[in-house]
Amino acid sequence: MISVGIIGATGYAGNELVRLLLGHREASIKWLVSKSFTGERYQDIYRNFFEIIDRVCTGSELEELAETVDIIFTATPQGYLSGLLTKEVLEKCRVIDLSADYRIKDPGIYEAWYKIEHKSKELIDDAVYGLVEVNREDIRDSRLVANPGCYTTCSILTAYPLVKEKLIDPDTLIINALSGVSGAGRGAKVANLYCEVNESAKAYGVTTHRHTPEIEEQLSYAYGSDIRISFTPHLVPMNRGILVTETATLNGECGYDEIRAAYEKYYAGEKFIRLMDKDVCPETRFTEGSNYVDIGFKTDERTNRVVMMGALDNLVKGAAGQAVQNMNVMFGFKEDEGLNIIPMVP
Amino acid sequence: MISVGIIGATGYAGNELVRLLLGHREASIKWLVSKSFTGERYQDIYRNFFEIIDRVCTGSELEELAETVDIIFTATPQGYLSGLLTKEVLEKCRVIDLSADYRIKDPGIYEAWYKIEHKSKELIDDAVYGLVEVNREDIRDSRLVANPGCYTTCSILTAYPLVKEKLIDPDTLIINALSGVSGAGRGAKVANLYCEVNESAKAYGVTTHRHTPEIEEQLSYAYGSDIRISFTPHLVPMNRGILVTETATLNGECGYDEIRAAYEKYYAGEKFIRLMDKDVCPETRFTEGSNYVDIGFKTDERTNRVVMMGALDNLVKGAAGQAVQNMNVMFGFKEDEGLNIIPMVP
Amino acid sequence: MISVGIIGATGYAGNELVRLLLGHREASIKWLVSKSFTGERYQDIYRNFFEIIDRVCTGSELEELAETVDIIFTATPQGYLSGLLTKEVLEKCRVIDLSADYRIKDPGIYEAWYKIEHKSKELIDDAVYGLVEVNREDIRDSRLVANPGCYTTCSILTAYPLVKEKLIDPDTLIINALSGVSGAGRGAKVANLYCEVNESAKAYGVTTHRHTPEIEEQLSYAYGSDIRISFTPHLVPMNRGILVTETATLNGECGYDEIRAAYEKYYAGEKFIRLMDKDVCPETRFTEGSNYVDIGFKTDERTNRVVMMGALDNLVKGAAGQAVQNMNVMFGFKEDEGLNIIPMVP
Amino acid sequence: MISVGIIGATGYAGNELVRLLLGHREASIKWLVSKSFTGERYQDIYRNFFEIIDRVCTGSELEELAETVDIIFTATPQGYLSGLLTKEVLEKCRVIDLSADYRIKDPGIYEAWYKIEHKSKELIDDAVYGLVEVNREDIRDSRLVANPGCYTTCSILTAYPLVKEKLIDPDTLIINALSGVSGAGRGAKVANLYCEVNESAKAYGVTTHRHTPEIEEQLSYAYGSDIRISFTPHLVPMNRGILVTETATLNGECGYDEIRAAYEKYYAGEKFIRLMDKDVCPETRFTEGSNYVDIGFKTDERTNRVVMMGALDNLVKGAAGQAVQNMNVMFGFKEDEGLNIIPMVP
Repeated sequence: MISVGIIGATGYAGNELVRLLLGHREASIKWLVSKSFTGERYQDIYRNFFEIIDRVCTGSELEELAETVDIIFTATPQGYLSGLLTKEVLEKCRVIDLSADYRIKDPGIYEAWYKIEHKSKELIDDAVYGLVEVNREDIRDSRLVANPGCYTTCSILTAYPLVKEKLIDPDTLIINALSGVSGAGRGAKVANLYCEVNESAKAYGVTTHRHTPEIEEQLSYAYGSDIRISFTPHLVPMNRGILVTETATLNGECGYDEIRAAYEKYYAGEKFIRLMDKDVCPETRFTEGSNYVDIGFKTDERTNRVVMMGALDNLVKGAAGQAVQNMNVMFGFKEDEGLNIIPMVP
Repeated sequence: MISVGIIGATGYAGNELVRLLLGHREASIKWLVSKSFTGERYQDIYRNFFEIIDRVCTGSELEELAETVDIIFTATPQGYLSGLLTKEVLEKCRVIDLSADYRIKDPGIYEAWYKIEHKSKELIDDAVYGLVEVNREDIRDSRLVANPGCYTTCSILTAYPLVKEKLIDPDTLIINALSGVSGAGRGAKVANLYCEVNESAKAYGVTTHRHTPEIEEQLSYAYGSDIRISFTPHLVPMNRGILVTETATLNGECGYDEIRAAYEKYYAGEKFIRLMDKDVCPETRFTEGSNYVDIGFKTDERTNRVVMMGALDNLVKGAAGQAVQNMNVMFGFKEDEGLNIIPMVP
Repeated sequence: MISVGIIGATGYAGNELVRLLLGHREASIKWLVSKSFTGERYQDIYRNFFEIIDRVCTGSELEELAETVDIIFTATPQGYLSGLLTKEVLEKCRVIDLSADYRIKDPGIYEAWYKIEHKSKELIDDAVYGLVEVNREDIRDSRLVANPGCYTTCSILTAYPLVKEKLIDPDTLIINALSGVSGAGRGAKVANLYCEVNESAKAYGVTTHRHTPEIEEQLSYAYGSDIRISFTPHLVPMNRGILVTETATLNGECGYDEIRAAYEKYYAGEKFIRLMDKDVCPETRFTEGSNYVDIGFKTDERTNRVVMMGALDNLVKGAAGQAVQNMNVMFGFKEDEGLNIIPMVP
Repeated sequence: MISVGIIGATGYAGNELVRLLLGHREASIKWLVSKSFTGERYQDIYRNFFEIIDRVCTGSELEELAETVDIIFTATPQGYLSGLLTKEVLEKCRVIDLSADYRIKDPGIYEAWYKIEHKSKELIDDAVYGLVEVNREDIRDSRLVANPGCYTTCSILTAYPLVKEKLIDPDTLIINALSGVSGAGRGAKVANLYCEVNESAKAYGVTTHRHTPEIEEQLSYAYGSDIRISFTPHLVPMNRGILVTETATLNGECGYDEIRAAYEKYYAGEKFIRLMDKDVCPETRFTEGSNYVDIGFKTDERTNRVVMMGALDNLVKGAAGQAVQNMNVMFGFKEDEGLNIIPMVP
């Protein structure tokens, strides 16, 4: 049984980490840190946990906290962890960071897209990008895992086999993504009020969304050379869920079977990736609450393109679930421990 | 390990039974019966179960089915089970009926409110009303359990201690209830289309809703004499959840402490009933996906009334979860086996 | 053509006033005051008005503003107007106040429920309660109209004829009300974020909601003596709409026809009140965007009660539409000028 | 004053036609035809019209109906009108068809995508494609107008100036579109039930959606040669609204100003097209209930692409509003008569 701490426990991703960890048989929550709610009972902030968890939010120091647990999850704003993390902390405990601080290897790109100075560049190389289905081996021995973003997890996994196998021309890759509102966090902003979001849809962050370089970097590794994509996220009125629709030109004549084979080559043994049957389009609702990514595709002879689609729950596979999956790999637990959750419909 | 069958597996309650039973360590699903989807793979109908359950819907006969399992759940329309059930079937296996067929002891009342002839009146007395927190002992040895309705579970449990302890005048009890749309089932009706239900609220079944006599009968048992209530259900745009608001005149001067004590007398040891802290109003979202009923109340000295509030997930404690809880009692399993589900927010 | 100013133009009620006044043939908007958005273009704040209104939000003084227009609408927080209004202002222009400041005649009750000191008690008697269907004659010559609250408009109008005609015992009147989220305003509060409100229902302000004394006062006038009611509001996930369900014991035996006659006595000539046909329950969606109140009822011989139901759009008949209706009466315009809006479905 | 009839009056587009025509000062509704609701009062089917329109749905014959009105709107399933329409009917009255029957000039393409035999091919050439902003002159004298589809209206208008001016390479045009659920019609289908659609997003009709050839045909006219696009529609949980996001490679170096100039060249004088300010992304809510199309764009130097975005209300500019706009052009009325509707927020 390992001991776990969560910094940033009262955001939506933190809340989801608590839900998942309470069902984990090898890990127990030692403390919950929340800047905004220090001193308050966790079950009063999120009353889904009423009578389930008896813990008061604390606000202590990273150095000290690191001595008390085996692993820390940080579900904190960009720039928070990179401003505090040191080699000493990492010697004391392992860290899974749900922010973007250690996802991008080139700090210049990080700083250009995030408009934040990176304050611990020396640790970036130690960090492993925590997309288990791609980097499983490297994650095992890592002390610092950069948990991927919600859009990026879905975008990368949906295209990965076709990029890796060079079945598509990556420079033609257009990614459109839809997100539920929990992806925008729990901050008190007018833009995220019920009446501002409900009954509407919009694109945002067009050409500038910060998940773009993260997707490009990972797909470039897969392809073997640099890739530039167009990524357009949209906000739609639902609590959870990410759906990506990716269009790309096929390299040569490449039919359903060849593409299917590529997906199966990489994902046949992956529990959390479900390849849809032919002609079935994934729907976010069928992944709700679970760690699954549902992936489907359709070829289009008229345009010689393929349309790939991926769906997941942004708070689970797109954040907390993936973090727990990373923890499981890092500590040698069964990879699905705590994650055997059946999606809930309706 | 017991063997379980579900008749009516493709409605929303059936789907929820499958979700819960797949997480149950003492029960395994033997077959799934669906009239509308006979011959189809269950995972194609509800793709949340894709790659999770590999079962084809069957459509066989009750007599034969009864020989193959330890217990049958019927999530079927009113009148279905009462038209087929026999003592012979009940000798072969136990039955938990999620319809209303055996909930009401007086068949005349059943027939008057449901406009259906009851075809197995001789079995009504054998049936136990499956509200575990009230009838736990009788459920243990029952062969036939009438699983309570969604509105009724919430309505009865919210008022039960105050009625039982005669703290309120039951003839002043006014129950207003809100339900999510899954309570209306999965039938293809114009009235339940997204655009007919979304962005609107309405009362329906005013003075005639069929859960009224069920609530009255159970609260009458608690009170010791016949009770007449006003029950008004409403449809509100959300998938899941029931919220009841019950107003009643207090008998004599009765303050917060006395009422609180009554609730604790009956519910202090009940895992699935959570009494809210003072001044906290239950919200349906904090019960979503779980078997909890959250109950709160507020006294009003101005009017000498109490306002009681209860919230639950209509598909879990209001249907499938309560059915599993009944099964656990009937077979001597831990009462929360398969039901240790943390509500999911948001 | 009269000249109109709006103070508090960037809240939801202010936004709705602008929408309605732009379609009014006898009134033109002179200025829009917004504390939070002073100096910004109105069409940039509410882009529904893009290219439709070209106006920059101002932030000037009430005394000066009063000289420039015929009427001012104040859609401001409680206590704002009562802290600034003077007889001099009212001599310069007429005022319709959408806040609660002048709705309640007894300042002690106002201060007890609102926890605010009333700073212009001397003006309260000059104010007319702006429920046109009840107080039309007094509104005509008023300089200061207290525009009723959203819940109160719906609650009062739904019960008024039966209280006035003494067909019900007003001390048994229980009002349950559901509101869409726009009633909570546009302030940046966590509680009103999409993910906090969506897919959930809750009661709030139980026994303490500030619309309670307003309903009681008006229904007491109708009844001829003091009335105490129970009022329980609920928040449900939709943008607009209020639905009230009111239960009361009938005085003597009183059937459908007698109750119907009472409603028709008061409302037959009222354009904005639509009495539903027998057995039809009002739905908020059928009033959306319009100034209608839809009212229905059902008698219950079993309990000798009547269940009355009312539905309206909280931003129109519950706020801005009623304010325009008041203005029309005050200036002798056609009462439905600017309000001939067909509800929009879906 | 002209006389108008609607066939298919009880679908969502028909209902919206009634709403708009009741506010039209030059047209009056003569009859409403509904196959499903013949003999029922229109105000009972859509209670938003309660006490507003007093009309019983009829079910008569096209030939006879044509003699009684100046213009017929058909909001009927594909194949209905083409199976009945004759030159004789068109001599008697003009027709605006909201179905796809006369939108596509090549009947082979129509039959291939719609899987329906076209039964009046001889009339196709007489039909004018009713996209007013593109074909205004041809519409004036037309007897038969093919009202464009909802997706197509938004897709074409968003890309038209850049295609026409050859600023983009049309073979790189990828259109992703989101639609509210009213676009799926009012048929009683399980797939459109509230609980099947709410809290989820999905792509559908991938590579096969029938609006694809319609978009291609019109953009090909603009470009001067044949174009092939990828079009992927998605369903998102809201009542109304279409949002398109279109990505294309720029021809040469082409910056914000040049693209802006192209949009203004074609749309500067168009009342119903609103070009967003720089960096503003359209949102469907800001068009709700109105005939506006809001269009914005963003250039991306990294990829040498432009991302164009368009938003409209699928039932207004995407159906009934555009039909009324066509009627206004055909009869020489002011083009915005009956369409001066301010979008309603929230």
